[in-house]
Amino acid sequence: MATLTTLALDAMGGDHGPSIVIDALQRALDAFPDVHFLVVGDEDELLPLLTQAKLATHSRVTLKHASQTVTMTDKPGYSLRAKPDSSMRVALELVAAEDAAACVSAGNTGALMTKAYFTLKTLPGVLRPALMSAIPQQQGGSAFVLDLGANPVCDSDTLFQFGVMGSVAAQEVLGIAKPRVALLNMGEEEIKGNDVVKATAALLQQSHHINYIGFIEGDDLFAGKADVIVCDGFVGNIALKSCEGLAELLLNNIKANIHAHWLTRWFVKLFYQRLQRSWDWLKPDHYNGASLIGLRGVVIKSHGDANARAFYSAIEQAVEETQRDLPTRIRDRVEQVLLEQE
Amino acid sequence: MATLTTLALDAMGGDHGPSIVIDALQRALDAFPDVHFLVVGDEDELLPLLTQAKLATHSRVTLKHASQTVTMTDKPGYSLRAKPDSSMRVALELVAAEDAAACVSAGNTGALMTKAYFTLKTLPGVLRPALMSAIPQQQGGSAFVLDLGANPVCDSDTLFQFGVMGSVAAQEVLGIAKPRVALLNMGEEEIKGNDVVKATAALLQQSHHINYIGFIEGDDLFAGKADVIVCDGFVGNIALKSCEGLAELLLNNIKANIHAHWLTRWFVKLFYQRLQRSWDWLKPDHYNGASLIGLRGVVIKSHGDANARAFYSAIEQAVEETQRDLPTRIRDRVEQVLLEQE
Repeated sequence: MATLTTLALDAMGGDHGPSIVIDALQRALDAFPDVHFLVVGDEDELLPLLTQAKLATHSRVTLKHASQTVTMTDKPGYSLRAKPDSSMRVALELVAAEDAAACVSAGNTGALMTKAYFTLKTLPGVLRPALMSAIPQQQGGSAFVLDLGANPVCDSDTLFQFGVMGSVAAQEVLGIAKPRVALLNMGEEEIKGNDVVKATAALLQQSHHINYIGFIEGDDLFAGKADVIVCDGFVGNIALKSCEGLAELLLNNIKANIHAHWLTRWFVKLFYQRLQRSWDWLKPDHYNGASLIGLRGVVIKSHGDANARAFYSAIEQAVEETQRDLPTRIRDRVEQVLLEQE
Repeated sequence: MATLTTLALDAMGGDHGPSIVIDALQRALDAFPDVHFLVVGDEDELLPLLTQAKLATHSRVTLKHASQTVTMTDKPGYSLRAKPDSSMRVALELVAAEDAAACVSAGNTGALMTKAYFTLKTLPGVLRPALMSAIPQQQGGSAFVLDLGANPVCDSDTLFQFGVMGSVAAQEVLGIAKPRVALLNMGEEEIKGNDVVKATAALLQQSHHINYIGFIEGDDLFAGKADVIVCDGFVGNIALKSCEGLAELLLNNIKANIHAHWLTRWFVKLFYQRLQRSWDWLKPDHYNGASLIGLRGVVIKSHGDANARAFYSAIEQAVEETQRDLPTRIRDRVEQVLLEQE
């Protein structure tokens, strides 16, 4: 019998309650026969749902009771102090105790980042965890962008490490042998960027462990020029959310335009679905889930608004990162890089 | 006879050479009968073009010779030192000498910002000039975003002043009585932004001269929630260029999708033109031109890739700001704000 991988699912997070987690679980049990799922949350709420889904006695499903729930508006510090028995915290503690290899949550991003950092700690040598997501590229395929908001302010050592961690992730998850790592920067020649970006460029240039290709500008984010794009969490968050805002503007324009012409109403479905797909893909943590990397365990943040399909994708990503043992790969590479710097 | 407003056009800037400037000039002479144009650049190149366009002896056109041209790849410091007689520099000096009220250039952005700052200086009390552009909003209309790259690093006093200057511009140019001013920030509650953004929020909150409405996130950039959106040049540049990159990705997707279906090929023109329009609108300085505000004179940066229509729009914007006397309005408001702070 093969060894089972164990995943902890925070069943109480997200805008749509536990039912979408149970739906996603049902699909995941079929897709991943070697995975055991710990479903974490309020027993009284979850048991009827599991029973209804005929999963209450499933051999690869274990219900783990947690008496509290982090809401989408709880402040991270408050939830850390006041909710020690939240489903999110318990799920992360299962990873910390090595009872699970990964945690998936659609809960409050700020609370998840704070709790994950507090509960799991960073890998040896890693300065800060980063929130990373894949974005689509012009010629197809994806690039990883990090950080998307875990660290509003970063020094050059931290950004350099994001380059290292992103590079490992692109190798393991995207299957790219020598990922091209770029720094996101503004466009003008002489006034290129700030001191932190310049210092990071120097560090990336020096390292033999990274295929650093230089600066890229915002308009190259989707151009297929890089496999890993590094920036601080403030810039990354605003850049990707701005794109989300623009996608919405364009989609609404298109909807308005096509409804205005009777002829083109035929094409609503075709165009809208295709565009909707591009748009959803751009939500940093919608379908694919965003990874909080650099921690002693795999943590996947699913979008708060995730439906069952989106939450399933986040589970899929957790399985992928766990099977690739991404934390160990990152730890090893960071160790090599630190030795190089000595 | 009405007094003529005088505008200086840098005829040598931009990717497409002086001919697009001459084409735009032809249109502008008809549209603005009260404007006199100083066409600045290489006489040997410009005179034949003006003659061909039958503008060489036009009563409201004066050719001003400048022996040098700033290229699109010249570094700002180099062009400042090595090209004292560039068309860009001469055009700005005409504004500094009050021989012109405004300068329009499609040249190298970095060089223009540096030269404008050096030649014109900031208005009394203004710490830094800012590059500002209008972006489309969901419900129609526009919002101003600043800074778009003149200042990669800003302190809170500078960002606060951008709020003041943007507010004056929205009143004068967009005609909004009480413009809603917002700060662009990242999303998470407790970890909201960096210290500079927080300190700026406090300053904006305190001022009676600004209708400050708080933070907005990247996905609200086009949502119609604010009339003036303030951020540092690093963030603003990356946010808007990222949107440009996304628009290109979506447009290419659409083109690929519609060409794949014979039925939908009919609709290529309709959709493509509509989308192309949204896209061009999003290029920070394509049609409308970007204003470099806070200086002792009006400076409009037209996109380097501008065609005659785009360059004409930049001229239009220069006329608008000149007729509204935007620099004086900004100077007065900054003075009031400084008095308030004493």
